[in-house]
Amino acid sequence: MIAINKERVWKSILDLSEIGKSEHGGVTRLSFTEEEKRAKEYVTQRMKEAGLTVYEDPIGNLFGRWEGTAPSAPVVMFGSHIDSVLGGGNFDGPAGVLAAIEVVQTMREKGLTPDHPLEVAVFTDEEGARFHTGMIGSRAIVGKLNAEDLYKHKDDHQISIAEAMKASGLDPENLEQARRTPGSIKAYLELHIEQGKILESKDIPVGIVTGIAAPVWLQLTLNGKAGHAGTTPMDMRKDPLVAAAEIICKLEQLAIENPGTVGTVGKINALPGGVNIIPGRVELALDIRHPVEEVRNRVEDEIRAFIKRNCSERGIEYEIEVPHRLKPTPCSENVIAVVQDSVAAAGLPVQKLISGAAHDAMVMAEITEVGMIFVRSKDGISHHPDEWTSKEDLAWGTEVLYQSITRLAGIHH
Amino acid sequence: MIAINKERVWKSILDLSEIGKSEHGGVTRLSFTEEEKRAKEYVTQRMKEAGLTVYEDPIGNLFGRWEGTAPSAPVVMFGSHIDSVLGGGNFDGPAGVLAAIEVVQTMREKGLTPDHPLEVAVFTDEEGARFHTGMIGSRAIVGKLNAEDLYKHKDDHQISIAEAMKASGLDPENLEQARRTPGSIKAYLELHIEQGKILESKDIPVGIVTGIAAPVWLQLTLNGKAGHAGTTPMDMRKDPLVAAAEIICKLEQLAIENPGTVGTVGKINALPGGVNIIPGRVELALDIRHPVEEVRNRVEDEIRAFIKRNCSERGIEYEIEVPHRLKPTPCSENVIAVVQDSVAAAGLPVQKLISGAAHDAMVMAEITEVGMIFVRSKDGISHHPDEWTSKEDLAWGTEVLYQSITRLAGIHH
Repeated sequence: MIAINKERVWKSILDLSEIGKSEHGGVTRLSFTEEEKRAKEYVTQRMKEAGLTVYEDPIGNLFGRWEGTAPSAPVVMFGSHIDSVLGGGNFDGPAGVLAAIEVVQTMREKGLTPDHPLEVAVFTDEEGARFHTGMIGSRAIVGKLNAEDLYKHKDDHQISIAEAMKASGLDPENLEQARRTPGSIKAYLELHIEQGKILESKDIPVGIVTGIAAPVWLQLTLNGKAGHAGTTPMDMRKDPLVAAAEIICKLEQLAIENPGTVGTVGKINALPGGVNIIPGRVELALDIRHPVEEVRNRVEDEIRAFIKRNCSERGIEYEIEVPHRLKPTPCSENVIAVVQDSVAAAGLPVQKLISGAAHDAMVMAEITEVGMIFVRSKDGISHHPDEWTSKEDLAWGTEVLYQSITRLAGIHH
Repeated sequence: MIAINKERVWKSILDLSEIGKSEHGGVTRLSFTEEEKRAKEYVTQRMKEAGLTVYEDPIGNLFGRWEGTAPSAPVVMFGSHIDSVLGGGNFDGPAGVLAAIEVVQTMREKGLTPDHPLEVAVFTDEEGARFHTGMIGSRAIVGKLNAEDLYKHKDDHQISIAEAMKASGLDPENLEQARRTPGSIKAYLELHIEQGKILESKDIPVGIVTGIAAPVWLQLTLNGKAGHAGTTPMDMRKDPLVAAAEIICKLEQLAIENPGTVGTVGKINALPGGVNIIPGRVELALDIRHPVEEVRNRVEDEIRAFIKRNCSERGIEYEIEVPHRLKPTPCSENVIAVVQDSVAAAGLPVQKLISGAAHDAMVMAEITEVGMIFVRSKDGISHHPDEWTSKEDLAWGTEVLYQSITRLAGIHH
């Protein structure tokens, strides 16, 4: 027996999908745009229907607050984001926000009042699709976004975050006031679509996230010696593509040897790129993730050592740049336990998994205990109009969120 | 004592280097372009200065003919090509054409008349840089290029060979008329830069080619399953780039295990090509060469078997196309002997070697006896603006060509 209203939360997904809808399905809602503004207006209305007090902080994060019986106690925060990538889907972000509002509305209807204050959070620009830097709202909250960042990062029309904020009626000068102190938030819990196929492959609707495997990206350039494919004997070559191939194979091997690690090369370029020319230069990008930073660091160290040895043996010169390094985040043991109890209470099988994608929860872990609830994604598709979670799965996820929030916040009957 | 005019042949190299000259040095002269047209005009003028009768065949091959004392006897043909790769050098091709003209001019000046007719040949599109299929001119001569090929192969702007021919005033319908019959040509001899480092490492200016290690190209497409780099565990992947990496490593290993073989991947493309996206599709091209066809076939069979096994294990679907398969070609014993005598007559050390690159001589071997003379390349660099052969080495090569042509054609004093 599910407590939450399955049809109501589903309807809100359908409603929000209309805002910023693309011609080819899916939505595009970039931060500080008209589409995002209308989406926030819709969410504000839904929050008010749930009896929440709505306010916006200086970076544009939207909160719906319920004071509860002990307004000065640390807040239990839960939510997600409503911005999207270009041509994104209808669930990545909205599922977490709309499920959170449904949880509050269900509590109201059941006459439950939380002991801790609740805040439903809608974070500004999680995706980074507009300014090529994401998690803007949550980073402002934990103090990892400074005034300089607001002027440095610009969109494709050379509009800075600060300028976009001003156009939306926000004052970049007030950025510091968005910060929350450690201790002011008891926990942050985020429901999100899995964006992977693990739950689907196990036929389970809801998963308990144990950690977020944030990526480090290594941008590798290998310089060898270009030459004619026919006239350069094998023993006179310095072929950077064979070196790259060995590195790709080694990364896979290291990922398999260190369970929970994923290692990917998605981008490779061999120059000059002629069929009959030994490449002189190869560029490739390595993406390495593990929820435990020590493990990720070990894999990174091992692949760096391999690159060094391999290039030295082959007479290849190399450079490594690190365009992107986020801290992997284990979820809180307490929150994991609460979610697990809630999954059991809902009569669902317990399936733990890690998040391979980054989320606001990862940033919030800087100042509070975090957890995440994943709902099953069809075919693992995400960041695409075909992104899909069924009405039933969203209902199960919302129910687990409801059970978890009532446990985390404490209930005054 | 060198018979040929060292300064004159060198000047013609410098002259031709001005046509299609790139900003960063070197030249780009693709077939049926304005640059190629101007290069042919220059060569035509030089041929006329050497007293040759100039004509173009239906595929655009340019010939300078000297009837000699027995016009109906089989032709002694010698030459090369003047098209280049993108950003190519000034010697690959032009050296053979301009040395050939110098040989004729020297004969005229010395009052020598050949018994057999001579034809200096400038073959259309040896490199294949424009239509991704090379040896167009020589293949037309031996009947290995058909009307369908002219429409099938297109450049990067979707212009077919046939369309490019029409734009240059050539009628694709006349293709068959470019054919020469076996027996109509006594021998084809080509001077070319080595494009390798063997002569340089032995400090010898001119080499006698004993065979051509023609390539087979395998165009390989691997189709796996694209996915999110963070959310797809290693054991749920079908990553075609890791499969490609193993194939690249295996090709190197097979080439090393089969001495004389060279195996190269010069071109690779991973799609969609995002840092954090497991590729769904990878395209790569394998170039395999050995002067003995049986050895090359064995290596090809082994890499094909490896691809099959590897893709099957990884759940990758693959396709192999063969855009290019040329027969490895031993040079004619007779022509080798003539060139060797000429090398000795010039007082040079005898150095035999194989050609790892394909040349029009290889195609011409379908209908006549062929030979090649290599001149030393600085650092083995080719297909690059830094391609270089010294004035002295070119002179020695031209002298050997002169000695060889007078021997092959017979001289009427």
